[in-house]
Amino acid sequence: VTPTALERYLAVRGRTLELVEPLSAEDCAVQSMPDASPAKWHLAHTTWFFEIFALPKALPGYRPFAPAYRELFNSYYNGVGEQHPRAQRGLLTRPSLAEVRAYRAHVDDCMARWLERAADPELLGIVELGLQHEQQHQELILTDVKHLLACNPLRPAYREAPLARGASTAELRWHAWPEGVFEVGHAGRGFAFDNESPRHRVFAAAFELASRAVTCGEYLEFMADGGYARHELWLSDGWRAVRERGWRAPLYWERSGGAWLVHTLAGVQEIDPAEPVCHVSWFEADAFARWAGARLPDEVEWELAAARAPLEGGFADAGRLHPAAAPAGSGVQQLFGDVWEWTRSSYGPYPGFRPLAGELGEYNGKFMSGQMVLRGGSCATPAGHVRATYRNFFYPPDRWQFSGIRLARDPRQ
Amino acid sequence: VTPTALERYLAVRGRTLELVEPLSAEDCAVQSMPDASPAKWHLAHTTWFFEIFALPKALPGYRPFAPAYRELFNSYYNGVGEQHPRAQRGLLTRPSLAEVRAYRAHVDDCMARWLERAADPELLGIVELGLQHEQQHQELILTDVKHLLACNPLRPAYREAPLARGASTAELRWHAWPEGVFEVGHAGRGFAFDNESPRHRVFAAAFELASRAVTCGEYLEFMADGGYARHELWLSDGWRAVRERGWRAPLYWERSGGAWLVHTLAGVQEIDPAEPVCHVSWFEADAFARWAGARLPDEVEWELAAARAPLEGGFADAGRLHPAAAPAGSGVQQLFGDVWEWTRSSYGPYPGFRPLAGELGEYNGKFMSGQMVLRGGSCATPAGHVRATYRNFFYPPDRWQFSGIRLARDPRQ
Amino acid sequence: VTPTALERYLAVRGRTLELVEPLSAEDCAVQSMPDASPAKWHLAHTTWFFEIFALPKALPGYRPFAPAYRELFNSYYNGVGEQHPRAQRGLLTRPSLAEVRAYRAHVDDCMARWLERAADPELLGIVELGLQHEQQHQELILTDVKHLLACNPLRPAYREAPLARGASTAELRWHAWPEGVFEVGHAGRGFAFDNESPRHRVFAAAFELASRAVTCGEYLEFMADGGYARHELWLSDGWRAVRERGWRAPLYWERSGGAWLVHTLAGVQEIDPAEPVCHVSWFEADAFARWAGARLPDEVEWELAAARAPLEGGFADAGRLHPAAAPAGSGVQQLFGDVWEWTRSSYGPYPGFRPLAGELGEYNGKFMSGQMVLRGGSCATPAGHVRATYRNFFYPPDRWQFSGIRLARDPRQ
Amino acid sequence: VTPTALERYLAVRGRTLELVEPLSAEDCAVQSMPDASPAKWHLAHTTWFFEIFALPKALPGYRPFAPAYRELFNSYYNGVGEQHPRAQRGLLTRPSLAEVRAYRAHVDDCMARWLERAADPELLGIVELGLQHEQQHQELILTDVKHLLACNPLRPAYREAPLARGASTAELRWHAWPEGVFEVGHAGRGFAFDNESPRHRVFAAAFELASRAVTCGEYLEFMADGGYARHELWLSDGWRAVRERGWRAPLYWERSGGAWLVHTLAGVQEIDPAEPVCHVSWFEADAFARWAGARLPDEVEWELAAARAPLEGGFADAGRLHPAAAPAGSGVQQLFGDVWEWTRSSYGPYPGFRPLAGELGEYNGKFMSGQMVLRGGSCATPAGHVRATYRNFFYPPDRWQFSGIRLARDPRQ
Repeated sequence: VTPTALERYLAVRGRTLELVEPLSAEDCAVQSMPDASPAKWHLAHTTWFFEIFALPKALPGYRPFAPAYRELFNSYYNGVGEQHPRAQRGLLTRPSLAEVRAYRAHVDDCMARWLERAADPELLGIVELGLQHEQQHQELILTDVKHLLACNPLRPAYREAPLARGASTAELRWHAWPEGVFEVGHAGRGFAFDNESPRHRVFAAAFELASRAVTCGEYLEFMADGGYARHELWLSDGWRAVRERGWRAPLYWERSGGAWLVHTLAGVQEIDPAEPVCHVSWFEADAFARWAGARLPDEVEWELAAARAPLEGGFADAGRLHPAAAPAGSGVQQLFGDVWEWTRSSYGPYPGFRPLAGELGEYNGKFMSGQMVLRGGSCATPAGHVRATYRNFFYPPDRWQFSGIRLARDPRQ
Repeated sequence: VTPTALERYLAVRGRTLELVEPLSAEDCAVQSMPDASPAKWHLAHTTWFFEIFALPKALPGYRPFAPAYRELFNSYYNGVGEQHPRAQRGLLTRPSLAEVRAYRAHVDDCMARWLERAADPELLGIVELGLQHEQQHQELILTDVKHLLACNPLRPAYREAPLARGASTAELRWHAWPEGVFEVGHAGRGFAFDNESPRHRVFAAAFELASRAVTCGEYLEFMADGGYARHELWLSDGWRAVRERGWRAPLYWERSGGAWLVHTLAGVQEIDPAEPVCHVSWFEADAFARWAGARLPDEVEWELAAARAPLEGGFADAGRLHPAAAPAGSGVQQLFGDVWEWTRSSYGPYPGFRPLAGELGEYNGKFMSGQMVLRGGSCATPAGHVRATYRNFFYPPDRWQFSGIRLARDPRQ
Repeated sequence: VTPTALERYLAVRGRTLELVEPLSAEDCAVQSMPDASPAKWHLAHTTWFFEIFALPKALPGYRPFAPAYRELFNSYYNGVGEQHPRAQRGLLTRPSLAEVRAYRAHVDDCMARWLERAADPELLGIVELGLQHEQQHQELILTDVKHLLACNPLRPAYREAPLARGASTAELRWHAWPEGVFEVGHAGRGFAFDNESPRHRVFAAAFELASRAVTCGEYLEFMADGGYARHELWLSDGWRAVRERGWRAPLYWERSGGAWLVHTLAGVQEIDPAEPVCHVSWFEADAFARWAGARLPDEVEWELAAARAPLEGGFADAGRLHPAAAPAGSGVQQLFGDVWEWTRSSYGPYPGFRPLAGELGEYNGKFMSGQMVLRGGSCATPAGHVRATYRNFFYPPDRWQFSGIRLARDPRQ
Repeated sequence: VTPTALERYLAVRGRTLELVEPLSAEDCAVQSMPDASPAKWHLAHTTWFFEIFALPKALPGYRPFAPAYRELFNSYYNGVGEQHPRAQRGLLTRPSLAEVRAYRAHVDDCMARWLERAADPELLGIVELGLQHEQQHQELILTDVKHLLACNPLRPAYREAPLARGASTAELRWHAWPEGVFEVGHAGRGFAFDNESPRHRVFAAAFELASRAVTCGEYLEFMADGGYARHELWLSDGWRAVRERGWRAPLYWERSGGAWLVHTLAGVQEIDPAEPVCHVSWFEADAFARWAGARLPDEVEWELAAARAPLEGGFADAGRLHPAAAPAGSGVQQLFGDVWEWTRSSYGPYPGFRPLAGELGEYNGKFMSGQMVLRGGSCATPAGHVRATYRNFFYPPDRWQFSGIRLARDPRQ
């Protein structure tokens, strides 16, 4: 049975609180880099979203929990007003974690009161957007906490739990697609972000797609073959990033004796060669593909493959919070979950793109420059959150998301 | 009559020297920002190109003019070896301008000796690439000197010459294209860079293209309407650029009393409302288009229009070195020359793209991230250098090229 | 009765814990700028001092509480080994505040066991150094927490407590000293830091010293007279600091309507003109003195005056934690407590200076460049910690300490 | 015979032009770092000094050569008005070197016209100040050009001339001074800068001073003994400079095979162990002294020794432009010329210091923070420019001046 709007609201909101259970108030307060936010800020900002965009319409006369929060927990909505500077989110030791929890409870009470009897479909649409938004921040809580804990020389785990290791992985195979004019993008019912629309026609040349994500074992071969030392494998900006940032391996990998270890949410582990490589930048994904004699897929190619695939994979709800070796199987595996897959497509507007009306128009559209599209979700993505048309986007040097590599290639002539 | 290879070589090489005629040795030595290079460096580097890529094959046993130049004047070819740091090109007061001229004369002598009797088509191809390369640097000499002179509070002119002002400009009209599957990219004889190939099919939705470039007058309306103060007109990265860099007008514009003046290669002039606006970043072009209720064309749309247009326009050879008001006419005007036109396309590889073999593979391909495509050439581009398939590329905040705006829009439904 | 070594140890250590009582674990974890440290770090580092420098000698076979702390809580002792980077102290959400409290308890237990029966005078000297060190960090806990809370737009108070306001201040008078050869510096029994020795002779010209510290009211006159806008009042480096940092008032002052408010440890208050001005940089102190037709005293002059003064004043133990108006009185008032007084003396070695032996030699001596001497203690200094020969030191632009201004001048001829 | 004021004016001004004889216009235009200025700027600024401070008073109705120069060639005189930004002096390709020479000729003509009949002693005082100022810039022309040429991988020489090498150096001996109250500083006739006054009494403890400057050979021992790798030899700020700037040797030294070479104004040479070490920062001088079991002298100690020494040494007029091995001799040698000698004294005001009146008060006084005093002049200082009371000053990390090391120590007890 489909949950009611209230049930769904409470389930998603409750899940966020579950995610911070293993964390202390200190863990929730600190910001490890400007790109990341404290967990406490995520807890507050996702609440702010409902307080700003839903409650004033849902409960006429609604008075904000604390007027200062309007600016404090505004992420980037210029239409709503000023924003506390992003790089200073970690200075907010007040409000305390307890106060932020009280803020959540207050807004949830108000929302529940309204959702029990709600019928306005437009407003329900905003609530659904708020929940999808909250799910995006659930993933960010995990990636941002992972970064924070990895900055600590004690290498603490988010959660002590030995990771089952992938016994083996199927050999990489190639699956061919014919050329043609196809439709991509979202249409129809069901939730989708504005950046997935409109559905539109594209011409795609024939291509081949790898049967699974690139593994750590394959990436170790790239490293052993001088991957980080051979300029000819890299784009110019990527090669500069390698030198200026001293990249020698994916983020969170560290050399210990003769072996490579990796910091995971379950603590430091040995590298499992069968698992998908993760926490690589777009530059690294691109260089690996060149080394492998292949290329990254564009987002159209990826979507054509995903449109036929079952929406299954290793998502956050499974609790592993680390990518797992691809299952055996005859088709294209692992498109969903485990690791976000970098594409060679710049994040831009689809033909005829229209952002949401009003302040929510700032949600996706204004970021359409300089970023690359990732597809498919990861082991930190809530199950049910992604779909074949879902477009995630980050900057080419970003590495702290669970981002991995799927190869594509042009057919041999 | 077609010039011989030698005649063409001497003509292009001679043109470069003509461009530095108005400059002193001091003007040629100084670097005004890391993105720009001293004119002397351009003179040497274009010569280096022939010495490195052509002469060793053309004249077996050729010995370099000065071994240190291999590194000193290497721009970015890792395959050739180390490079003198880009930001320190302006520290090279030695070799002197006279020595660099001697270097040019020496290489030209050697090249001429070989070209008189040359027949190897592959090597002639490299020579042609070197001449096309030199033409690109001819444009850079002008843009880089313009930047240098504009840094000087004395606001010196590159060349004293009053600019004829555009009496009037035709009203902007829209030209419609139907949807379809089209071919774009280079094919056939004639020179083209590797990044213009292969010719390939694309699906394009119906679109409309503006009949001419956006004028200074139109841009002044945008400014008067709060263009630089309204966040909702800008992409997020663009809005940050506006605030961090304090942009209030295009580059080289300055407020004087009640009027706007502009620094040109002919000195400081009043703004001519009929002329195309120039020296705007991609972010500004994008914001202007949003303000105008339009958008930038993608590079496919631009190329479909240009494929039908005569290859005429205001190029450097006309000597104006400043964009001129669009001529009257019924079709799409001004696609070539006057100002490079920003598109909304990220610079990336065409499907099936293959860079040139060997070290020359670094010419174009390794820059395929983070930059946007510009089309059509400018008033500083040598006549004959561009074509409908030509792809120029710069970063979204770059403003020191002669970059302007052409609008496009989706058809009204 | 003099307390026993154990009593004194427990009293000083206990006082540190009292200071963090008003703070949450979050407040104790965050670092607001590289110069400041989290309170939790102060709690751990002061404990580390005893664990590293005293316990191995006091309790043979002592095993460290946690081996990783050796590096984690090492401030700057290269002789002890590597240090966790200063600017990343705020990333250490683990160990938790509770664990750091346990660390303190463990070390205190060990120290108490030894102090009950201790007699080794050299080791007791190190313990006393550790307690003096702890008192210095008690002051830093207050200044660093003040900075953190002031970064928060909610402007939280460390402790809610209305500040009694200074009804009035005595008019500033001048006290004259004759020229002569004098002795300054520490000699004899009693604790003193190495940088206060050896006692040595100096020639001092005649000078006059102000009877009290400069007040907020006097500083407001300087501001109203264009103090921050007149280059001729400033040293060159100071004038650059004014422009680059946008200084318009002391740190923690903010304009609200027509009035100036100040952020204190008791929250935001109106400026009290009778109170000493505080949180000014050396550059501001120097500029104010020039504006006032006076100068800063050098440290010899200050010490000559202080040598005769009773060691009384507004210290931290009084609980006000904010400077108070000078008491009435005929002599030179307020030399101790309330505000540290910038001198015009660079911090350097006294003639014949010898740092402590071994690793503790890094305590003071290696900072003898680039900093200026401050004298007298402040309202955040523990009572009993300072003396007439005590030398504090900070960089000329530093403002987050309780630093104020005492004027001096040459006698009228 | 004493030269007339006009003869002296012409001699000093002419000497500046001689110094730029070996340089091209390009060499004179480029700025290699913000601390250094182009030679052309020095030529113009020294002329500006007379045009701004002397000519308006000397020749009533004098009209400036070019009004824009008032700002363009103002170094740091806020009282005169705005200044072209220091770091952008190298962008001024116009006015050309020829125009700046014409500017010099014009001002010299005007000055000569007035000096032929001049008698106003106050104005003659300003002229003398202008000539002393010009001599300071003569030294800066040499140090700044040396830096520029050393940035060039071709390592060009300012002037081709093999350096005679120091056959040997006398062993370092120590000369003792008794304690006492002494007078230091300038008094009496003769030119001196304001910062050398007033002459005043100081108490100095007994000390010993080294008989000559530290040699390259001695410095190589320091390096071989791990001088740049042992933290305990360095002040905290110095140790940070070592690591952040990667210092491994004095500026201009480079390792080649097994030997150390040094870039001099006569090109690259082998290190001569007998010569004074040069181009070391204050931090390096301080660390060397600590390694040697000694310390740097304070400026009083240096001056007490210099007051008795003949004002002789290796100055720029000798043409070597590189420090030479100390001559044999029984007293304290080499106090003047060869290398500036870092002292451990911060640059500050003497008791009772009064800057010059008016705009010229900015000449010296406003730099009295953060810098260290150097004494004695160097091989790039014009003969006759320095004296025993002369105070030069630079920041502790500065290395591009001809700065060396003289050791001092406390007497053995």
